[in-house]
Amino acid sequence: MKLRAVLFDAYGTLFDVYSVALLAEQLFPGQGERLAVIWRDKQIDYTRLVSMSGRYRPFWELTRAGLRFACTRLGLTLDAAAEERLMNQYHHLSAFPENHAVLAELQRRGVPAGILSNGDPAMLQVAVKSAGFADALQHLISVDAVQRYKTDPAAYALGPQALGLPAREILFVSSNGWDAIGATWFGYATLWVNRSGLPLDPLGTEPTRTGSSLRDVLDFF
Amino acid sequence: MKLRAVLFDAYGTLFDVYSVALLAEQLFPGQGERLAVIWRDKQIDYTRLVSMSGRYRPFWELTRAGLRFACTRLGLTLDAAAEERLMNQYHHLSAFPENHAVLAELQRRGVPAGILSNGDPAMLQVAVKSAGFADALQHLISVDAVQRYKTDPAAYALGPQALGLPAREILFVSSNGWDAIGATWFGYATLWVNRSGLPLDPLGTEPTRTGSSLRDVLDFF
Repeated sequence: MKLRAVLFDAYGTLFDVYSVALLAEQLFPGQGERLAVIWRDKQIDYTRLVSMSGRYRPFWELTRAGLRFACTRLGLTLDAAAEERLMNQYHHLSAFPENHAVLAELQRRGVPAGILSNGDPAMLQVAVKSAGFADALQHLISVDAVQRYKTDPAAYALGPQALGLPAREILFVSSNGWDAIGATWFGYATLWVNRSGLPLDPLGTEPTRTGSSLRDVLDFF
Repeated sequence: MKLRAVLFDAYGTLFDVYSVALLAEQLFPGQGERLAVIWRDKQIDYTRLVSMSGRYRPFWELTRAGLRFACTRLGLTLDAAAEERLMNQYHHLSAFPENHAVLAELQRRGVPAGILSNGDPAMLQVAVKSAGFADALQHLISVDAVQRYKTDPAAYALGPQALGLPAREILFVSSNGWDAIGATWFGYATLWVNRSGLPLDPLGTEPTRTGSSLRDVLDFF
């Protein structure tokens, strides 16, 4: 099957969600890394809770709730100024080092590319602009349009709708194993960019391919 | 509002899911506790993934998948014999120490009581019998009937259906904060038995009450 376009997950895939750990470490010495991990875990937890319960709220709110939980959990006092600094940092996450070159090469090869993300539209706009990806990504698709988070099929369905292509002709790329599996279930061709060498969730479904950096996208086109 | 019945979450609330750590520690010295924690996290993760994606599988299968992931993650070799011993242990989890007395007292007071759990029916039967709770619990309700895990409203709706009472007249008791919040969203009166003193997930909803042991159930009746 010839693939005609590529959609990227944003958080963890294009943007390094743990890059907030640096600022967190400045604010809370010795706790930055743990804070970043709990923050991220809770953020994802909350997308699932509200989605399953039909109580959608934008990703930005859930990101804030995750930060607050993480600080309370670690016994850290998060004043309003620190909260705003950390949330602002989440708007300007670092991109993984290889990403610029990969997106530029896709553009050179004429492959339509976009994002399909849990992030709400305003977050995606700022993050993409801040990372210098705006020219290389023609589609910024947020699950906010259906108020269901991934891995709900309604969220994945936004990709084929926006691109006017069947899912099987679109490569969906995620560094989150659960996202790669959900997209595979939905019908996309999938690449799991397994940056940290984690085991695959043994649920009987494998992504089309597993790689270790975004560069592996280029083998598909 | 007078409450007329009580429904308990099973895993983590009536049964101590971390009691498997003892056997895990025997099999994998120095790793038992980490194994138990990752196992539990992944088990819950998987309920959400398959539920959100409309790919339901019984809790027993997801429990096994969680165990396999946890061992791979920790670099532990799980042979078939060890897997069966650990899975069998999950059939016979310890009950928290106060639970027998609380269930007996509810029975004495004539309060109808049951379980509403992610566990599949066979798991619940064995666990309840093994813990000696069979006489005290008149309803064993498994989400398997709707093939949606908590916090999906279809799962919580099984309680009022089985008891013939509106949710607001039923006390739902869980040690899992997310479960207490999900049940509150659904419309139950709720008690969060916060055994480990965790922060509440800051999602703008509080359980009716928060306690620290199952004994706090008795204050409602």
